[in-house]
Amino acid sequence: MSVYEYVLTQTNFVHKDDLKYPFEERGLQFGDGIYEVIRVYKGEYYLIDEHVERLFRSAEAVKITIPFTKKEVYSHLDELLKKNNITTDAKVYLQITRGSAPRDHAFPQNIEANLYAYVQDLPRKLEMMRGGVSAITQADVRWDWCYIKSLNLLPNVIAKQEASEAGCFEAILHKDGEVTECSSSNAYLVRDGKVYTHPAKKNILHGCVRLRVKKFCQEESIPFIEEAFRVEDIQYADELFLSSSTAEVMPITVVDGKTVSNGKAGVITQKLQEKYEEDAKISEATSIFAK
Amino acid sequence: MSVYEYVLTQTNFVHKDDLKYPFEERGLQFGDGIYEVIRVYKGEYYLIDEHVERLFRSAEAVKITIPFTKKEVYSHLDELLKKNNITTDAKVYLQITRGSAPRDHAFPQNIEANLYAYVQDLPRKLEMMRGGVSAITQADVRWDWCYIKSLNLLPNVIAKQEASEAGCFEAILHKDGEVTECSSSNAYLVRDGKVYTHPAKKNILHGCVRLRVKKFCQEESIPFIEEAFRVEDIQYADELFLSSSTAEVMPITVVDGKTVSNGKAGVITQKLQEKYEEDAKISEATSIFAK
Repeated sequence: MSVYEYVLTQTNFVHKDDLKYPFEERGLQFGDGIYEVIRVYKGEYYLIDEHVERLFRSAEAVKITIPFTKKEVYSHLDELLKKNNITTDAKVYLQITRGSAPRDHAFPQNIEANLYAYVQDLPRKLEMMRGGVSAITQADVRWDWCYIKSLNLLPNVIAKQEASEAGCFEAILHKDGEVTECSSSNAYLVRDGKVYTHPAKKNILHGCVRLRVKKFCQEESIPFIEEAFRVEDIQYADELFLSSSTAEVMPITVVDGKTVSNGKAGVITQKLQEKYEEDAKISEATSIFAK
Repeated sequence: MSVYEYVLTQTNFVHKDDLKYPFEERGLQFGDGIYEVIRVYKGEYYLIDEHVERLFRSAEAVKITIPFTKKEVYSHLDELLKKNNITTDAKVYLQITRGSAPRDHAFPQNIEANLYAYVQDLPRKLEMMRGGVSAITQADVRWDWCYIKSLNLLPNVIAKQEASEAGCFEAILHKDGEVTECSSSNAYLVRDGKVYTHPAKKNILHGCVRLRVKKFCQEESIPFIEEAFRVEDIQYADELFLSSSTAEVMPITVVDGKTVSNGKAGVITQKLQEKYEEDAKISEATSIFAK
């Protein structure tokens, strides 16, 4: 997945090889920053309003003052795609740190937040979306405020690595058996035609695609129940799936080596995938359902 | 607190203004790294064995391979002081990240960890060590593995900032009332001649100075009881103090606006400060107890 040449830093574009971080970047020393990963289809942003809103909410939660208005952020993000001539499926990584100052835990005074953003290729994971992925379950050791999309991602990194070493796509995280979400996606269980997922409390990320999944369910009169399910409920699931900006709506068909239900993408999962493609205006050529 | 000119990056010294971080530094994108802050008195390291050992333990816990032997780390750290002609009281900040690679939660293959280290002036906080500091109490929202000295420090940053805004030096963190530690130091309560502190479990940092405090207590036949105390126990404390590499042994004399005991550094705290100065070979001229 190649990174496109021009990187946005504050309001300037620099070549990625020329990017120079300040010496004492608080993002590097404390993970003192927030980020978004925004999906791009055929050169157009998807769910950009949701991502920009969440960016500002995360900033407010950690008291970072974004040195731009929302309108300016939109305009810089547009320029970023133009400058790199993006016409394909990609993702934008946008990071804002508190800034650079002599290392001290407390916030430094009178410094400006640092913005970095770049574009990376991201083909849709069609095979996985059709056939499903496998996952492991793992204790959720993260902090209490995962609704903040912060740079403190070490537990997520470790969980994802464990999944990867087990030949799996994701780690389903749980607190004392209660499933919160996955290491970089939200988790859902389907039983008797109803979709269950952890409520949007402080301890999970309020996913932009999760919001859409909720809307899709409402439009299709599928009960969307914001109640946590438990690891031991998975054996009774009719379907299990995850959602994120990079994985879209993805069936989970194997958990801890055991097949979920009949081991195939379920009807509700497929309905939500269809709705997603419709919503994101994904052309037939790149559809999961294309023959 | 000025930073000395020469920064160590891997095995090279560069001027701090010339330091160039790789474009996709995992330290910056995930907080995927570990660190140590090592105290220097009159140009000599204090507790360097403890810090180097913990660095390697943290690395092992997060599966980062340090690209140097312990012996090489010692030697690079020595060079760092020499190169900058350090003869005063200072601290060394040493950071090792998993490395640089296209952004993906799971560990990248075949990359080398990045090491950065620099020296900063650090005069002893004599006034505060004599007179004590104030603290607030706050819920501990950090992850479960704080024994790993990782770059995921956003909750610590937020807690320290709250303390700072309340005019205090530290935030005493607690899980449901049980005191774990402070935002960047360990916490201790003295009652009836006994020192109480949270056991060295996975949810607190195993402080290098904490190890010394334990040893000092043993040498002085002061019972050192590794049992967590509660926020509401503070009102009955004879003494309260904290310890860290930068704050040494520091009395806490006010908590949430209320005076602890008689509001002065207690006898056991002072005894531990004396032992610390003796152990660190701090000359009389810079002693807390100098008249």
